[in-house]
Amino acid sequence: MSRNIGILRLSHRHFRDQRITTHVALIARAFGCTTFTYTGEMDKEMEKSINDIIDRWGGTFEVQHLTSYRSYIKNFKGKIIHFSMYGEDHRKTIADVKKISEDEDLLLIVGGAKVPPEIYELSHFNTAIGFQPHSEIGAIAIFLSDFLGTDILYQSFSGSKISLENNTKANRSIIRQQEIKDDA
Amino acid sequence: MSRNIGILRLSHRHFRDQRITTHVALIARAFGCTTFTYTGEMDKEMEKSINDIIDRWGGTFEVQHLTSYRSYIKNFKGKIIHFSMYGEDHRKTIADVKKISEDEDLLLIVGGAKVPPEIYELSHFNTAIGFQPHSEIGAIAIFLSDFLGTDILYQSFSGSKISLENNTKANRSIIRQQEIKDDA
Repeated sequence: MSRNIGILRLSHRHFRDQRITTHVALIARAFGCTTFTYTGEMDKEMEKSINDIIDRWGGTFEVQHLTSYRSYIKNFKGKIIHFSMYGEDHRKTIADVKKISEDEDLLLIVGGAKVPPEIYELSHFNTAIGFQPHSEIGAIAIFLSDFLGTDILYQSFSGSKISLENNTKANRSIIRQQEIKDDA
Repeated sequence: MSRNIGILRLSHRHFRDQRITTHVALIARAFGCTTFTYTGEMDKEMEKSINDIIDRWGGTFEVQHLTSYRSYIKNFKGKIIHFSMYGEDHRKTIADVKKISEDEDLLLIVGGAKVPPEIYELSHFNTAIGFQPHSEIGAIAIFLSDFLGTDILYQSFSGSKISLENNTKANRSIIRQQEIKDDA
């Protein structure tokens, strides 16, 4: 795709959110997003776990801690989509985003514990992925899957040391067994 | 839907997996799944956080710890789908599952740290949600979204104390502000 899609994860807490935030980053990466920024506590351990995946599985995915979201959002050139179950039906957002230029970048914002009301104002879209409480990981996954389709999930990234694409099911099983052995 | 869809989460670890496992359960619940079972460490705190959501947001969703997956899987009447990036394209699985009776129950298995090879054998489908490492939450979300569609995410559950369905965007925003106040 010609547009870049970035993620902004708000109010990360090292202890409580480490794995959740990592999963947000990994699902975004799998869909070809290129930038992952987060506010809250800087977390080098989390950054390392994401970078370890990039090292083995390839691709370009930049992870960056921000001291404040405000200037980042205000300087962002493109459309900002904030996920909240109090927002509008995501299918309406997707239909609207498909009307804008395909070159325009997108920033997807997922909240932490308490999202400042300002985020609702600064975003072009406040988008629900359903009207039930569930998961910011699920929200990003469903939005990107509905927006981009899932072909991209089956591709390999440039520079990967491991690739499952173009392998038969039997071959993928052999790779899996090798991975388990390497890990042991 | 006439079929029940259940989740089995393997090898839960209280300390490390609590929020991930909770998100797996909540995304499954949002899609109308009715049963959530898990092996590994029993975690009453996690169960409580899921049950608190059910209490406020309604619906029928049974959470149960299993001491062993083996007898549960062997006694399960229906089709078993295990998620693994070493599996087959999920769109093939979905096409195959759509061919079987709509009354046949489904059990979706997501792994913990190391999935016993036996799980691959005991499952009818080993299903990848892409060939990249990402998230069991993302996997469940994308599978159920592609399989069931996303209409269901916008419905309210029976017995809910809060409902965002049939509210305007402005009303949902008022409910949000009320929730923040109640939480403070």
